[in-house]
Amino acid sequence: MEQFSVYILGCGSALPTTRHNASSQIVRIGNKQFMIDCGEGTQLQLRKSHIHFSFINHIFISHLHGDHCFGLIGLISTFGLLGRTAPLHIYADALLKKIMKPQFDFFCKELPYRLIFHDIDAEKNEVIYEDNSITVETLPQKHRIPCCGFLFKEKPKKRHIRGDMMEFYKIPNHMRNGIKNGEDYITPEGETIPNHRLTRDADPSRSYAYCSDTLPCEHNIPLINGADLLYHEATFANDEETRAAATFHSTACQAALIAQKANVKKLIIGHFSSRYTDEQILLQEARSIFPQTVAANEGLHISL
Amino acid sequence: MEQFSVYILGCGSALPTTRHNASSQIVRIGNKQFMIDCGEGTQLQLRKSHIHFSFINHIFISHLHGDHCFGLIGLISTFGLLGRTAPLHIYADALLKKIMKPQFDFFCKELPYRLIFHDIDAEKNEVIYEDNSITVETLPQKHRIPCCGFLFKEKPKKRHIRGDMMEFYKIPNHMRNGIKNGEDYITPEGETIPNHRLTRDADPSRSYAYCSDTLPCEHNIPLINGADLLYHEATFANDEETRAAATFHSTACQAALIAQKANVKKLIIGHFSSRYTDEQILLQEARSIFPQTVAANEGLHISL
Repeated sequence: MEQFSVYILGCGSALPTTRHNASSQIVRIGNKQFMIDCGEGTQLQLRKSHIHFSFINHIFISHLHGDHCFGLIGLISTFGLLGRTAPLHIYADALLKKIMKPQFDFFCKELPYRLIFHDIDAEKNEVIYEDNSITVETLPQKHRIPCCGFLFKEKPKKRHIRGDMMEFYKIPNHMRNGIKNGEDYITPEGETIPNHRLTRDADPSRSYAYCSDTLPCEHNIPLINGADLLYHEATFANDEETRAAATFHSTACQAALIAQKANVKKLIIGHFSSRYTDEQILLQEARSIFPQTVAANEGLHISL
Repeated sequence: MEQFSVYILGCGSALPTTRHNASSQIVRIGNKQFMIDCGEGTQLQLRKSHIHFSFINHIFISHLHGDHCFGLIGLISTFGLLGRTAPLHIYADALLKKIMKPQFDFFCKELPYRLIFHDIDAEKNEVIYEDNSITVETLPQKHRIPCCGFLFKEKPKKRHIRGDMMEFYKIPNHMRNGIKNGEDYITPEGETIPNHRLTRDADPSRSYAYCSDTLPCEHNIPLINGADLLYHEATFANDEETRAAATFHSTACQAALIAQKANVKKLIIGHFSSRYTDEQILLQEARSIFPQTVAANEGLHISL
């Protein structure tokens, strides 16, 4: 199966610590790389990761808090210095380009590539990116300002051709595509060979959901149901539940409950408050509800 | 003597590397801390350094290239999150506050402290900061855009009182200050005791010059003459002299020549191009002209 993985560049929250960078991650699907959020220092993390800068063509910004977008201007400038020519697509609240316009005008006036902004309506669940193999859709979140998560979903895949059957029935090559798409085969003698005898099941379509920053959102559960991987913010431990609610964040237990109710296969918790010098407490609390939980960390690379 | 030292937070140039951060440093004089430049990731470097965020009240920005100022917005926000109340003074080209205004308006609208901008005219050599013990003046540089260095100078210090003489002449305490300032003492009998018999020489007034980014500037030599420490950019090695000139940067040898001609006590070279995975070549070239050269590095802390 094609690669589908998530690489964590930063999983801290608003205040910087020596342990965690501000939010950013790379979603790798096949040879495509998508960035989610871009806190300060993202380009430095990217450099450490040895991920190719030039393969990133799409950046999705969940919301306009500094720890999710202050790294954009540096990254955009560096792309320019590296001689990038491919357009760069940025998906964010419409305010972003307005707020950053004077910076772009001043610092990026000789950019050798095009910046293309796509406005996100964080209150809607809609497809904002689509190519021949995946879609990305917004997941409305509940935060202090408009904020959305992102759901990366592989499209249904083609069935696998059985080589032995192709040979047995002497099926011409130009018909392979149709058969992969589920067509039956009619022999020159007029006999219909049903598709299921010629093919094996397609690989499953995988999905990855990113939910940060947010209160636990029941309304997203049907949307992320059965996801292979869910990244959910878990800024606080249980004893800070009141603070979590007041600041529109989630506790580790609340993240785990969402994972459990949505029946996802695996949960990564992240966006840790700077008060934790060790995330074991958060991990333990989440695992008590949803055992398939891991704690994010800079450099963590998880395959779906 | 009071502490006077320089702490390097970042000494790389425009492109980020895994070895060097973008430009920033802290000048510590007594219990005051001044920041020079604030590239992306400065607040993370500051966190690693264990320097107290709250002691920084003045930030000097040499010029408006991203690797010297993209860290400002994050630092300013973090100061707010940490509950800072003391005003923060930023000395920079007048364009900075214009370019960043929409960002300040959006991200910093609930800042619990005041941001005070002081416009710099990079073409002038003038005092832009003064307190009871030091002055900071601009040093016009030659770069692609308006750019200035900074000269931190201790004011002339008071002479040291000789305790034995104070006792011998039974000089009343209220006269100490005048004597420290160079006054003679007249005894009740009318005899004049010259100041040099009552005091020892004052500590020397030290100075630190920061010159980055720039072509070598002969016109600054008289201004920085005799400085205890000079930080001078040395983006390139000798074999890239043409490139250095074309991009308005200096080679290590050019930095060393400035140090030599200005008769400074020590030189730190920095602002290394990302092409060098090891700065030994730059250090060797500089030392061949000016032996008292050290190469900057993140975490380097040099006392004057």
